[in-house]
Amino acid sequence: MDLAHALSEVVGSRHVLTDSDMKAGFESDWTGRYRGPAVAVVRPGDTEQVAGVVRLCAGHGAAVIPQGGNTGLTGASVPRAAGESRDQVVVSLLRLNGIGEIDPAVGQITVGAGATLAALQAAARAADEDATLDFAARDTCTVGGVVACDAGGARALRHGTARAHVAGLEAVLADGAVISRLSGLTKDNAGYDLPSLLVGSEGTLGVITRVRWKLAPLVTARVAALVGVASVAEAASLLTALRSRAPSLDSCDFFTDEGLQLVLDHQRRRSPIPARSPVYVLAECAGTSDPTDELADALEEAGIEDAWIAGDTAGREGLWTLREGHSEAINAAGIPHKLDVGIPLEHLEEFLAKVPGAARGAGAGAQRVILFGHLGDGNVHVNVLGADPDDVAVDDAVMGLVLDCGGTISAEHGIGVVKAHWLERARGRADVAAMRAIKRALDPAGVLNPGAVLALGEQYCQ
Amino acid sequence: MDLAHALSEVVGSRHVLTDSDMKAGFESDWTGRYRGPAVAVVRPGDTEQVAGVVRLCAGHGAAVIPQGGNTGLTGASVPRAAGESRDQVVVSLLRLNGIGEIDPAVGQITVGAGATLAALQAAARAADEDATLDFAARDTCTVGGVVACDAGGARALRHGTARAHVAGLEAVLADGAVISRLSGLTKDNAGYDLPSLLVGSEGTLGVITRVRWKLAPLVTARVAALVGVASVAEAASLLTALRSRAPSLDSCDFFTDEGLQLVLDHQRRRSPIPARSPVYVLAECAGTSDPTDELADALEEAGIEDAWIAGDTAGREGLWTLREGHSEAINAAGIPHKLDVGIPLEHLEEFLAKVPGAARGAGAGAQRVILFGHLGDGNVHVNVLGADPDDVAVDDAVMGLVLDCGGTISAEHGIGVVKAHWLERARGRADVAAMRAIKRALDPAGVLNPGAVLALGEQYCQ
Repeated sequence: MDLAHALSEVVGSRHVLTDSDMKAGFESDWTGRYRGPAVAVVRPGDTEQVAGVVRLCAGHGAAVIPQGGNTGLTGASVPRAAGESRDQVVVSLLRLNGIGEIDPAVGQITVGAGATLAALQAAARAADEDATLDFAARDTCTVGGVVACDAGGARALRHGTARAHVAGLEAVLADGAVISRLSGLTKDNAGYDLPSLLVGSEGTLGVITRVRWKLAPLVTARVAALVGVASVAEAASLLTALRSRAPSLDSCDFFTDEGLQLVLDHQRRRSPIPARSPVYVLAECAGTSDPTDELADALEEAGIEDAWIAGDTAGREGLWTLREGHSEAINAAGIPHKLDVGIPLEHLEEFLAKVPGAARGAGAGAQRVILFGHLGDGNVHVNVLGADPDDVAVDDAVMGLVLDCGGTISAEHGIGVVKAHWLERARGRADVAAMRAIKRALDPAGVLNPGAVLALGEQYCQ
Repeated sequence: MDLAHALSEVVGSRHVLTDSDMKAGFESDWTGRYRGPAVAVVRPGDTEQVAGVVRLCAGHGAAVIPQGGNTGLTGASVPRAAGESRDQVVVSLLRLNGIGEIDPAVGQITVGAGATLAALQAAARAADEDATLDFAARDTCTVGGVVACDAGGARALRHGTARAHVAGLEAVLADGAVISRLSGLTKDNAGYDLPSLLVGSEGTLGVITRVRWKLAPLVTARVAALVGVASVAEAASLLTALRSRAPSLDSCDFFTDEGLQLVLDHQRRRSPIPARSPVYVLAECAGTSDPTDELADALEEAGIEDAWIAGDTAGREGLWTLREGHSEAINAAGIPHKLDVGIPLEHLEEFLAKVPGAARGAGAGAQRVILFGHLGDGNVHVNVLGADPDDVAVDDAVMGLVLDCGGTISAEHGIGVVKAHWLERARGRADVAAMRAIKRALDPAGVLNPGAVLALGEQYCQ
């Protein structure tokens, strides 16, 4: 029996897509940058069907490409374009979108891998709870993908990345076996924590089917402040002061004057802050009671004289638009090299000072380097404008500087396909050898998402 | 060259103990229940020496038993008494006790595996920071052991177990290779999260040498309340109410009237609460400002009419003595079966109702079953008095009930040697097969802490 036919017997024929036009949306990512051929797209309806699909693919020597909302930025959610000679089957988890009841005593909920982050957030809010993870792709990205990639966002400063929200999960392993840890016990020390290993493994060690998600009581009193500072060092000092004096600090982002001017031009707005500064900090506090005084006092104690403070929703959103408008404004100015990296705070000033030179030195035409990100967790989004988008020398130069500064080559987007060949340089031989050993142990035939995280060809050699 | 001599060349002869009287304290746990022979006790002074020791032991076919403060309760920190025919070398991490500088901007500190939890707590407090993990063994247990066993304690309700405190770690793998992830970035998605896998692996996958620990701003305003309730169901409702109305809730423990009377008799005290109740809840709130009103309001809204509230340190400690005095009072009444388990809150009432009968039915003489623990995270300490301490039927009966209630056979003590043969029944075949595959992948010769977590003899079979 051919694979597509066999898959139909597991999930029903209408959930096996083999026509080109039906498959197309699953074979290419939303940026159009990554694309590869799938012999079929399968849409299982429950965990048992996922297990059946994985077993069938393994038996037919086909590769499984797990896919959630397909909002990833690293090429890991679509079939490989090259290097993978086997048939590839996209396993879409979108039908596993059930959302369970909230357990208010422990503040947890069990969610299907295919539920969107926005659906989880809405279910939480309806019960006065807060899913606490948030980023722009919320309406499309799925909980399974969020967990598989350990997604972050601005609120990770206070609440951690997806990892910190996972009280347990259920997953299908490469041999079709199901592991289930959904009791959600805060303390559960019975053996290796397999859920922790699967978080951030980008579908290469198991297909996540359900997640036990930790919620927090919803806090609705919010205030944001935009502050101009003279340097990144001053921004770091401000963060230290806010962290110790404003326990309600919920996020703390930064951008530069170059980025702000680009955004203001693009949005045809005037700056809400009268004086220009080299660097801006956008901090938001959230609490059960109004945190405005706490934030204002903390700013005053930190020696900040001028700050634009917004307590109402419209005002806060206006400030965040300056930060979140960066990507759109940058894309309107050209095709950028976009690199999501993390730098320890103590090296952030050095990194920001050196990265424009490094990019310009590496790539002809690399004229503008726009930097912004999450100050609180060192997550910097590097955007290089003017260079040939395919000139990898630019990315190499930035990555080298990241590593020189003790940083990480991926903060919140994952390694995927695009950064796999950098992984050993970033983590070191011993670390990646351990990863390869784990991959071989749990997926000896390399069925699950081959080429993501660990580069194809290198995956099975030490 | 014999192993002890070779070890001396790595760590210096005065750090290789081979005399019986010098070794004794390392060969037996503090309860005296677990004991096994070590050919040598080695005290390396840094990570490089730990790596050298592990390589030597592997080369000589000897097993490595990593040891911190030796306060574990599962037999995993001392040599195996039986089933291990190889030479066993205790590797004491106590000399790796360095405590780094606190980075106040991100609230993190790098600590040697051999530093005690109390030393870490003191270093944090000196900088107005809070290590936020705490339990009774704080003066002896080490950070490496705490992380290797994913220790918990009462404050895990709010701050999580050791796992939630680990921003990164450094460890020596079974082949002597060192992995180092100490940059402490909140967001770092470059490949599998090996630190998460090592947390709670009880020294079987790597020897932890340094830990990057997450701190929280120190809060010093505290208030505790002791509340009598009619049932565990009422206690659970109270927890739900406190969780939603008192965000400053820091811990929420429970005990029964039978336990309280035992403690009061043993401590020769009178109850601070005038009326007796079947169950008592001990809740503590902590904040930057005095949380007394918040706690009192939350109790009132939850319909609690009588509560004993203590805002001063002496009063709070007096209440906590009732809870923490349970172990001593129980031990004074006989040799108990002690089982550290976790039960989902929705099944806690069923478990508490059935466990006395299950214990009595299984073990002749099992007369008293004293239950107490951390309500907030479902961690129940089951103490069975009157039965033969070696009658495993009692433990089996309790464990069976735990699993029937969807609970975990180990909440915060780990699996160690004592619970290894229960692991597959608890986790299921697929889950434990994955653990065994990982163990084989990272430690093919079974050098590291053999017999802990995965039972000897079963370790290398599917």
